[in-house]
Amino acid sequence: MNLDQQILTALHAAAAVGVSGAELSQRLNVSRAAIWARIEDLRALGYEIDASPHRGYRLCGVPDLLHADDLLSRLGPTRVIGRDIRVFQETSSTNDVVDKLARDGVPEGVVVFAESQTRGRGRLGRKWLSPAGRGLWFSVLLRPNLRPQAATQMTIATALAVARAIQQQTGLLPGIKWPNDILLQGRKTAGILTELSAELDHIKYLVLGIGVDVNLAAHEFPADLRKLATSLRIEAGRTLNRADLAIAILRALDDDYARITSGQFEAVANEWAERCTTLGQPVTIHIGDRRLHGRAEALDEDGALLLRTEHGRLERVIGGDVTMEK
Amino acid sequence: MNLDQQILTALHAAAAVGVSGAELSQRLNVSRAAIWARIEDLRALGYEIDASPHRGYRLCGVPDLLHADDLLSRLGPTRVIGRDIRVFQETSSTNDVVDKLARDGVPEGVVVFAESQTRGRGRLGRKWLSPAGRGLWFSVLLRPNLRPQAATQMTIATALAVARAIQQQTGLLPGIKWPNDILLQGRKTAGILTELSAELDHIKYLVLGIGVDVNLAAHEFPADLRKLATSLRIEAGRTLNRADLAIAILRALDDDYARITSGQFEAVANEWAERCTTLGQPVTIHIGDRRLHGRAEALDEDGALLLRTEHGRLERVIGGDVTMEK
Repeated sequence: MNLDQQILTALHAAAAVGVSGAELSQRLNVSRAAIWARIEDLRALGYEIDASPHRGYRLCGVPDLLHADDLLSRLGPTRVIGRDIRVFQETSSTNDVVDKLARDGVPEGVVVFAESQTRGRGRLGRKWLSPAGRGLWFSVLLRPNLRPQAATQMTIATALAVARAIQQQTGLLPGIKWPNDILLQGRKTAGILTELSAELDHIKYLVLGIGVDVNLAAHEFPADLRKLATSLRIEAGRTLNRADLAIAILRALDDDYARITSGQFEAVANEWAERCTTLGQPVTIHIGDRRLHGRAEALDEDGALLLRTEHGRLERVIGGDVTMEK
Repeated sequence: MNLDQQILTALHAAAAVGVSGAELSQRLNVSRAAIWARIEDLRALGYEIDASPHRGYRLCGVPDLLHADDLLSRLGPTRVIGRDIRVFQETSSTNDVVDKLARDGVPEGVVVFAESQTRGRGRLGRKWLSPAGRGLWFSVLLRPNLRPQAATQMTIATALAVARAIQQQTGLLPGIKWPNDILLQGRKTAGILTELSAELDHIKYLVLGIGVDVNLAAHEFPADLRKLATSLRIEAGRTLNRADLAIAILRALDDDYARITSGQFEAVANEWAERCTTLGQPVTIHIGDRRLHGRAEALDEDGALLLRTEHGRLERVIGGDVTMEK
């Protein structure tokens, strides 16, 4: 932990009680002047830090911005996800940043956030709107010991983690549309882009890209998306703290990743199925030029969708665009 | 085509008859002095070019080195493979070079050769011996419209192309050990490393790495490999021209890629099966910690191996190390 992170950890722990400059200085083994300088910098970033002779420093408010030290200090120790967190003000695409880190040999678990993306993308190279400060746009590097065809397991786990975290932070109950959309009131509020680098029988690394429309107002969506997309703010009727949500997602994802790497995908899949709006429904799935009609029956052990077609055959579907026939 | 390439094309076409400097100068629209300068450079690279007042320039011998202009001029037009050829004297791994080209947006079909690789690798990061000038170490970039699980089709097609080209150039009859080894007298003489970058349901790009032990002498193999590996030179009893073999492989691969992208994988798979030493045999397949015994029955439509286990069940196998039980 660097000094900013140590100070923020101490301030969060002290909460309303506060902590004196003398105590911070002794505990962190730096001068009181150095503490003061860091506090000033944190204030400049938007942290409201009260200083009084009696109560010392108290954290009264945190800014709605993503700060790697703050996220790391509040996330605390995890198994894998978030051992390293990096925040960019702007980048082309966080998936591209993580892909580069992966090729440079960075260990799994690193998480890259961007306040805004200039070339955010969804599946099949589709554009993903990522305006500054309005959402969570981030990517996670994993190096699971899985065959490429089991990568869908991680998309399933991520959708579940995002849905659980949204419910915890907002009280809303999100639905999951297979394979990678998180819906509120039938409108998309988060999406997942899974990209992998692999040999035929072996994943070299996997990049999970996660986009959550947190605080966008209705007018910030392009007109053609307003019926299809929504934000947590619109649905919850209040502005949400993005860092709180980010931490909740990372913790949930850390739990689900541990379950998958220890062979408990079935438990993850069962929880996912409870939230899934696709299973049991008649659906149409577009895969490139192909179109499949049928009833979505279940996930198989790789996370693929088993579709009972009109002709009674069971088809195994990996990706594609799902339309509900209702 | 650049000037070197145009001159080499003309010299190859003229063969023993030769072509005059005046004619070359007129045909290529450059001065005779410029032709002379390029001829001198080609001679410095090892091309034996005879010049006489009566017969003009004649190509009497080509060096055993890989020269992009020479390869391009002799390969001639293809559908996809080899539209762009690059030769490095030394590189870490040609797969890494092509991976970088892919991310830079280079179109499919580019082929990268290296005279030697400092970090040549086989499957699962295993080291691949790649001494200078002794073999063909190269990689091909493809952007097929295939699902990731169909990538095995390309490994199958490549193994077939390499086997056909070796047979054409040496008269030897290579066997194929599923999924990616080319054998002569039961010893490995070529291997294929397929790496891909993908979304869950969509290949972004695919890199075929091909290594052929062409002219290695027996003593050039490490002692522990001598019973397992061999070279074309050892088996054919003569040194082979590497450029001739490279061109034969690229042409065969161009044909097979066209068949796969036009939906004719079955025809490729049938030819592959005729050369395969694994099908019909009792085998043991190691996949990570797992071990499968059974009889290799056939390929499925994705190129995966269908294995009839001891218990009569049909298992679908994507990768792994195959041991023949003989």
